[in-house]
Amino acid sequence: MAGKPKIAIIGVGLLGGSLALALKRRGEKNLVGWNHRAGSRKKAARLLTVAPSFDKAVEGADVVLLCSHSASMGPVLQQMTNHLGKSALIMDVSSVKGAVVREAGAIYGMPRHFVPCHPMAGKEKSGPLNADPFLYQGKYVFITPLPGNPKPLVQKAIRFWKKVGAVPIILDSKTHDRGVALTSHLPHLLASAMIQLYSQNEKKSPVFQKAVGSGFRDFTRIAAGNPAMWRDIVEMNAGAIKSFLAKYRRQLGGLEKNLKKGKGRYWFSFFEKSRKAREGLG
Amino acid sequence: MAGKPKIAIIGVGLLGGSLALALKRRGEKNLVGWNHRAGSRKKAARLLTVAPSFDKAVEGADVVLLCSHSASMGPVLQQMTNHLGKSALIMDVSSVKGAVVREAGAIYGMPRHFVPCHPMAGKEKSGPLNADPFLYQGKYVFITPLPGNPKPLVQKAIRFWKKVGAVPIILDSKTHDRGVALTSHLPHLLASAMIQLYSQNEKKSPVFQKAVGSGFRDFTRIAAGNPAMWRDIVEMNAGAIKSFLAKYRRQLGGLEKNLKKGKGRYWFSFFEKSRKAREGLG
Repeated sequence: MAGKPKIAIIGVGLLGGSLALALKRRGEKNLVGWNHRAGSRKKAARLLTVAPSFDKAVEGADVVLLCSHSASMGPVLQQMTNHLGKSALIMDVSSVKGAVVREAGAIYGMPRHFVPCHPMAGKEKSGPLNADPFLYQGKYVFITPLPGNPKPLVQKAIRFWKKVGAVPIILDSKTHDRGVALTSHLPHLLASAMIQLYSQNEKKSPVFQKAVGSGFRDFTRIAAGNPAMWRDIVEMNAGAIKSFLAKYRRQLGGLEKNLKKGKGRYWFSFFEKSRKAREGLG
Repeated sequence: MAGKPKIAIIGVGLLGGSLALALKRRGEKNLVGWNHRAGSRKKAARLLTVAPSFDKAVEGADVVLLCSHSASMGPVLQQMTNHLGKSALIMDVSSVKGAVVREAGAIYGMPRHFVPCHPMAGKEKSGPLNADPFLYQGKYVFITPLPGNPKPLVQKAIRFWKKVGAVPIILDSKTHDRGVALTSHLPHLLASAMIQLYSQNEKKSPVFQKAVGSGFRDFTRIAAGNPAMWRDIVEMNAGAIKSFLAKYRRQLGGLEKNLKKGKGRYWFSFFEKSRKAREGLG
């Protein structure tokens, strides 16, 4: 394996494990993984070689993927800098980028290594045992470079994601965070609030259960997400979420006013607009 | 076919057409259909015998199913009373029951015939060509009797729905309308408002399209519904929808206040509660 650049995957769960499988399919042999918890390391060992320690995992790596769920990336980035070669590339996969850009940008020398990334991939079942070599196939991956990232480093990140089948999109972290606030974080809050409103009322009128159809299941499916992960997302992206939530609440206020007799035209045009917009999603 | 009780289906679309197929499977041979529009009658003729007129369709029928989409059922109910036998049963399938109960209850003699119903069945593609003999299989059908309905008439309605595989649930129209406001009508408004908020922002930042994942598609799927049908639903059930929308908006107000630093515990418990409630749906 000497000569083959080493790729280290820190946090071998669904995302990290799927990267491992995708890279193996593309002939990468010098792969090592690491998980913080012993139980997770055991599961990870079914997918790739597990290093004896975190330090050993990243030592001399050409590419490091940080796939562990963590609210703060600073400490782990700092811990690995001593073990890395000059041209090593570090990437993460977390879903809020502004905080990561600020934190990593503030660490001396980090822009020479770290390129923040967010692949739009996932599935309902988490964990390395649900890993899938095709998880990234055709999926967008957002790359939000640090101000000081050298161009060749960003190019290396782009090549990496293309290798696992993903479609890289370069954009600034603020636009990214607004985009995911709108399409993912706000809907998550709305679905969660809806399922709680349902739950409160269903306790009083259990027959409401029988009125639950596939539409309600689809609408509330995202509310089953991991609470710790969502707590961190909401805390890290509170500003963007708040701004869209305020707009959304104003829209609902307008709808509420029109819930009275004689507003047929208003509602027809409202639903017509909505249908067109939804059909536009494809 | 003499002696076989006649079943008339008015409005042979997805719901009416699926009833026709389910009844045929159960050996019912004396079935006739009717659609208001000539084009729809042509399609309906692929599923069952189409009568030469509305009056001929209902004439002498033992059971009449009103499956046409219509904001007001009064006129059609009145038109058919002259053509019906003494023990004829009429049912509808519309998704708001309070208005129907009031309207039909006010027509002299109607409680002797009309039992309001709402089967919780449907699928994304409408029209008779998407009819499915198993559409009602295992699905709940709400029956909200009129105050003056004779018990044997309600029993006849129950037997009818069981025959096509549905599971009848008797309840009052107010509880029904609150239940569907909560699990169907409010979510429909929320998804529609979300897709419009998305659409407005995506026009300014087209890259937001790339942040749309399967969660957002699931969350907004219902917003693609038929605008005329949804206009009528919202107009007929405005009171119940408004009461839940007001509660929901208050909940969102609470969330908005907590979108700031140091609220990790609040959000963890909020998402934990939501996950449990969603998993409780099964």
